[in-house]
Amino acid sequence: MRILITAGPTREYLDDVRYLSNASSGRMGYALAEAAIARGHQVILVTGPVGLTPPRNCQVHHVETTDELLGACREAFPACDGVIATAAVCDYRPRERFSGKLAKTGVSLELELVETADVLAELGQTKAHRWIMGFALESAEFAHQNALRKLKEKNCDIIVLNGPAAIGSNTNEVELIDPLGQAIERYTGSKTDIAMRLIEWVEAHLNSQ
Amino acid sequence: MRILITAGPTREYLDDVRYLSNASSGRMGYALAEAAIARGHQVILVTGPVGLTPPRNCQVHHVETTDELLGACREAFPACDGVIATAAVCDYRPRERFSGKLAKTGVSLELELVETADVLAELGQTKAHRWIMGFALESAEFAHQNALRKLKEKNCDIIVLNGPAAIGSNTNEVELIDPLGQAIERYTGSKTDIAMRLIEWVEAHLNSQ
Repeated sequence: MRILITAGPTREYLDDVRYLSNASSGRMGYALAEAAIARGHQVILVTGPVGLTPPRNCQVHHVETTDELLGACREAFPACDGVIATAAVCDYRPRERFSGKLAKTGVSLELELVETADVLAELGQTKAHRWIMGFALESAEFAHQNALRKLKEKNCDIIVLNGPAAIGSNTNEVELIDPLGQAIERYTGSKTDIAMRLIEWVEAHLNSQ
Repeated sequence: MRILITAGPTREYLDDVRYLSNASSGRMGYALAEAAIARGHQVILVTGPVGLTPPRNCQVHHVETTDELLGACREAFPACDGVIATAAVCDYRPRERFSGKLAKTGVSLELELVETADVLAELGQTKAHRWIMGFALESAEFAHQNALRKLKEKNCDIIVLNGPAAIGSNTNEVELIDPLGQAIERYTGSKTDIAMRLIEWVEAHLNSQ
């Protein structure tokens, strides 16, 4: 298969220096890229700024903002069989980006945050015969319901639910939620091990679409 | 000498996942720590989250927020001869930190940003016989004036002026601004080379205080 994988955080700038982001390390996405390549798949990796070296034999697009991520995915997705969307996009961006570096003034600053593009939802709208494995990072007590809602809103075939402990960690604990809301698999361990399990799951369940 | 060095960015959280930060790599601070150790000095490195491995033979304190940076510096500074402050602290933080991960609502979000503690100014107020080498990252056309104002406001002995191109780069271009506002030195090159020049400058000019 040819698989599009998104990884890492995005950044949304307030001025030329400061931005809104999150601590996503990109490890889950890079581990998935490694695992997919090891299993003989072609990988297009669209990655936000992380401290990792992309795997060899992998087409890599580096992006910074959510809009750049969207642009790279729009271009790559049509030629792929499916997408695994691990990127922890900034859901919000400052409405205005100031040029230069805002000087401190001694008073507080009102910042208006607007929602960024919903990359996964757009891929979902244009998927046609392609499959989508989404990721949901949920901290709330309604984690399962939220994950299922995301799956439906974004037209995913399967969604991988994980918690905030995943961020920046070498290990993870994930559940696969299907379109009926069932937790059909649960994997715990290193991100490397979980990545291999997920790729094998994709091969077994999404490959034939 | 025993030298306190601050490095890297700080992060200020909006909720448990999202934060305000900047792309400081920590390279200038870590290079200064390496250079100081190579020249026989003792180093206490207080570092924000970066992807670098601290030098050996170095006391390291990992911090995340500006308040944590301030706490670590307050504790370490009294036992040091001086401080080299390269950390790119978040000057602003969201007034409120929400627990969990804020769900998207479809509407924009008003965020009130308040100024964080001014770590360098506080070290300046308590410096007594200790010396302070500050760093100023300035993009404005009044870069020199701004750097001199910072030197005075923060009670620095010398301030290293650099531009936004320094962020995340392996190289840098710096000017040393003295309390009279004179650009007394200008170093260009790798951050490793500039670090050695700066340590030698400190030895020659600040050691005897």
